[in-house]
Amino acid sequence: MKIKGKEYRTIWFDEKKQVIKIIDQTKLPHQFIIKDLLTVKDAINAIKTMEVRGAPLIGATAAYGLVLAIIKNNDQTFLKKSSEDLINSRPTAINLKWAVDRMMKKLSGINSNETLNIAINEAKEICEEDVKFCENIGLNGLKIIEKIYNKKKDTVNILTHCNAGWLATINWGTATSPIYHSHKKGIKVHVWVDETRPRNQGANLTSYELNEEGVPNTIIADNTGGILMQRGEIDMCIVGTDRTLSTGDVANKIGTYLKALAAYDNNIPFYVALPSSTIDWETKDYKSIPIEERDTEELSHIEGLDENNNLIKVLIYPKKSKAINLAFDVTPAKYITGLITEKGVCEASEQGLKKLFR
Amino acid sequence: MKIKGKEYRTIWFDEKKQVIKIIDQTKLPHQFIIKDLLTVKDAINAIKTMEVRGAPLIGATAAYGLVLAIIKNNDQTFLKKSSEDLINSRPTAINLKWAVDRMMKKLSGINSNETLNIAINEAKEICEEDVKFCENIGLNGLKIIEKIYNKKKDTVNILTHCNAGWLATINWGTATSPIYHSHKKGIKVHVWVDETRPRNQGANLTSYELNEEGVPNTIIADNTGGILMQRGEIDMCIVGTDRTLSTGDVANKIGTYLKALAAYDNNIPFYVALPSSTIDWETKDYKSIPIEERDTEELSHIEGLDENNNLIKVLIYPKKSKAINLAFDVTPAKYITGLITEKGVCEASEQGLKKLFR
Repeated sequence: MKIKGKEYRTIWFDEKKQVIKIIDQTKLPHQFIIKDLLTVKDAINAIKTMEVRGAPLIGATAAYGLVLAIIKNNDQTFLKKSSEDLINSRPTAINLKWAVDRMMKKLSGINSNETLNIAINEAKEICEEDVKFCENIGLNGLKIIEKIYNKKKDTVNILTHCNAGWLATINWGTATSPIYHSHKKGIKVHVWVDETRPRNQGANLTSYELNEEGVPNTIIADNTGGILMQRGEIDMCIVGTDRTLSTGDVANKIGTYLKALAAYDNNIPFYVALPSSTIDWETKDYKSIPIEERDTEELSHIEGLDENNNLIKVLIYPKKSKAINLAFDVTPAKYITGLITEKGVCEASEQGLKKLFR
Repeated sequence: MKIKGKEYRTIWFDEKKQVIKIIDQTKLPHQFIIKDLLTVKDAINAIKTMEVRGAPLIGATAAYGLVLAIIKNNDQTFLKKSSEDLINSRPTAINLKWAVDRMMKKLSGINSNETLNIAINEAKEICEEDVKFCENIGLNGLKIIEKIYNKKKDTVNILTHCNAGWLATINWGTATSPIYHSHKKGIKVHVWVDETRPRNQGANLTSYELNEEGVPNTIIADNTGGILMQRGEIDMCIVGTDRTLSTGDVANKIGTYLKALAAYDNNIPFYVALPSSTIDWETKDYKSIPIEERDTEELSHIEGLDENNNLIKVLIYPKKSKAINLAFDVTPAKYITGLITEKGVCEASEQGLKKLFR
């Protein structure tokens, strides 16, 4: 999708320099910086510090991380160690493990002089597949938005939480793909963008990317969704997910659950958009999903532009105060109207998912 | 209550200088500044810019605002105009109107040379009554906390939203009064403090005042309450209110409703603490409550300390982005376990309230 009118993807391999290129998402929206990742350590660091984030994109970054590992040291032991380190770089999103496992399976038993090319092709394939999946999610979700639009005959107001936009994937996004597809088709949409504390990915990334594509949007504090729903100012919600259990329960950015409860209370459809790579077929109990706890500095400090346009970090909490920073919560399937996948829309349940995927 | 070990109230009349003293709450937690209000305009400005905030405290400030009006110009027309301007300074909290009406009733038909003394005494009386009410709310709420403590035999974890602390009242607070009373009695309590975007009154004021009183507390992003409840890490919620309908529906800081939904979903008691001055006996439909919309700069900009301890305001949103800033939402009575008032705890319903108050 576009930034300043130019088409980008979130990650790509520079054949000539043999490096991975990413958009440093920690600097958005204030600075647009393309960064080189030279080593697997760089890739792990980019995932940990959230220079890249979003379940599909961290999966792709991990895949390319293995490419960088092979470039540096084409040795089985190093590759094995790198794959483990990549999987452990963040705990909640399942795509990370999915992508690494897929790469390692592809590379197993391969002659060492072929390893690099095969790895590069598989990482590219993971990206291309994600783009295709996200495009199909868009086409499937478009039908839902179109139906509301045809009935309402006025702008469809969609709430989203965090960034499940193209910046969280390779292109199109998951939750945003139906929105972009609707917008391109001339359906009037307006997006309520949850700020998404503590890292503000809604304000920093979702609103930013919607602006760049010309999609009308309004940022709201995370607290605001409830009253907008009570007032009838939200027609539907679409969010992404970092891990979808086969039961239909969904782990996503902290706060998603609260919006699902409010949507349920106000009889507003609540959809979760996901490529099948986020499905965890193993875990049955949502209480077993590891919930990442991150540094509390993400809460107590915030970066922004001062009056001279300098990017400055400030402390916003009382110096003595403690905080806790949990990154995800779980929305039980009963509050989810449907899952929008690359293969179609299904009920948030084992039966629903199995109809499409098994 | 205490700041740096010294007892304060949030507002008081300086007899000698004939001015009102307030703590400028827009500067907390980074700076502790006591400010003089010299005119009714100063009082209105302090309410509008939220140098004073919290339903009971803005009521008291409005009462003292009339004292300042009389000092400046002891004339009926000016007093009438001042009372209207004060009532219109913020729309949602009902105490504002309650306090002004009470003052005007007291002053009606009074000989002009007695007006000032009577006004000063009535404003003081409003403050003293609020302190007493808040103390009684504390004693009534204490029983609920004590019951949980006796059963659990371990720290009682209480979530609160925004600041319904002593800084929102004259002393003790509403939601915090049961907490302070428990703490003073030796009951182990720990408070989960919702940051409360956009103005962060939870982090800036509630955590700050709890720190100063030595009550253990942890700041969380507003998104976090849901998963903490799912995990069993919250034993109860107590919040304040800006307007309590006779139906038991409660208008409070935006986001309160989302926490009430989560508490309900997880079978966690959700209490609202209020002095009877916040009860609106007239309005029957919560959709008629005026919901204040404030400047979006409260969302897009934030103030904090830079590395040199200078207080700096930074822009945290994309420059092109729009935002909306609604200050309150409404929690329907069915999600409220009980109302903690100065006269006792009652059901959130007309019947419940009338048993205590009519």
